[in-house]
Amino acid sequence: MTGRLDIVGLGPGPRRWFTLETEEILAGASDVIGYHSYIDRLEPLAGQVFHGSDNRVEIDRARFALELAASGKKVAVISGGDPGIFAMAAAVFEAVEQGDRSWRDLDITVHPGVSAMLAAAARLGAPLGHDFCVLSLSDNLKPWSLVEKRLRAAAGGDYVMAIYNPASKARPRQIHDAFELLRELRPANSIVVFARAIGREDEQVTLTNLAEADPSIADMSTLVLIGSSATRRIDERWIYTPRGFS
Amino acid sequence: MTGRLDIVGLGPGPRRWFTLETEEILAGASDVIGYHSYIDRLEPLAGQVFHGSDNRVEIDRARFALELAASGKKVAVISGGDPGIFAMAAAVFEAVEQGDRSWRDLDITVHPGVSAMLAAAARLGAPLGHDFCVLSLSDNLKPWSLVEKRLRAAAGGDYVMAIYNPASKARPRQIHDAFELLRELRPANSIVVFARAIGREDEQVTLTNLAEADPSIADMSTLVLIGSSATRRIDERWIYTPRGFS
Repeated sequence: MTGRLDIVGLGPGPRRWFTLETEEILAGASDVIGYHSYIDRLEPLAGQVFHGSDNRVEIDRARFALELAASGKKVAVISGGDPGIFAMAAAVFEAVEQGDRSWRDLDITVHPGVSAMLAAAARLGAPLGHDFCVLSLSDNLKPWSLVEKRLRAAAGGDYVMAIYNPASKARPRQIHDAFELLRELRPANSIVVFARAIGREDEQVTLTNLAEADPSIADMSTLVLIGSSATRRIDERWIYTPRGFS
Repeated sequence: MTGRLDIVGLGPGPRRWFTLETEEILAGASDVIGYHSYIDRLEPLAGQVFHGSDNRVEIDRARFALELAASGKKVAVISGGDPGIFAMAAAVFEAVEQGDRSWRDLDITVHPGVSAMLAAAARLGAPLGHDFCVLSLSDNLKPWSLVEKRLRAAAGGDYVMAIYNPASKARPRQIHDAFELLRELRPANSIVVFARAIGREDEQVTLTNLAEADPSIADMSTLVLIGSSATRRIDERWIYTPRGFS
């Protein structure tokens, strides 16, 4: 038996956001590897082994998955959302590059999924209907100076922004610093959305603007959207960024 | 009977990239509305009416969909990829805002899907594994000066870039102008990918760098990816952007 490694995303919410391909891969996997919270969303099939692990150990998890695949298993590595957006695919390739050279010959496939930003955007209307930037506020793995540089660049380019990892218990401060900076760079009436746990039972959407936004409501399950100068609001329900500037 | 309007994305490629939700919506729709090329990927069910239209008439198509929904039909508006990324969702909300006020009370839902950039990224590894910008080069609906400003901002912020609509028969020049500008702003060895028709039979991937890239190979089915300073290549097969800067 030849092993293989499939990297899939469960989407950010309900099973109906799985792709048909993700369903297939999960049905055919001998081993499923991922962060506990994502593993807990699945039911193991007969003979299938689930390997849950803590957050923040992505590289160890990736190496373990590669070892299992090299030993002949059919391994599915799972992420929430899409596996390529601030998720496991990058960790796996980091492990491939740094690891045993034989890992480069493994049968590895990344399968696209529904990312949290697409789900949040859909829930709100079409805020990402035009040019946008996607960035993580986490400075666990990059210096804050780079986050700041990218916030300045995105604001200067009048991009819509989708901000991942705005805050965590260990990093309560970044989102406040980011908003302080954005308030210097963007108009006070810029549309701001805190889209929390979209598609899940505890989903919460807060639609506000840059002047009135309270960044302390953001947590690790929140995606923050900041409108460009063109982003518009329809009543209290929808926001969208038009396809053009008229 | 009360009408409704569901805005769904078919993904950029095969049916296995549909979400389960998209399958459900298409199965329950009385009327399916979209660009001919996307409509042609589906088989009408018994009693279902397909309304194909030309490209570049998004607003007319959106109004027609809203009228049908207002008349009591269960309407699915389809896009390729995700409906919120340079696609029909923005056109529908533009039509809602400008149209009959009663349209605001319609039951409208946007359903996320697999976007072309996520599929292209998955095919290549994990190029979007860290901060990135997404922009369209089309100046049909926005001035070229804004495209240029955003290219400069993205380059200045050392973002990975995902470039939609790089060229068309009517706009062969933009991608050349964009590359001329990017060559001033980014190192010559920046990774460049032309990801054409990913997931379709005529899929083609060209992995190169900024100095050697030939932008004339880009067409309307091509997504162009430009790496950041951190984006890495593993042999001739994979590219990824690490989760951090070490």
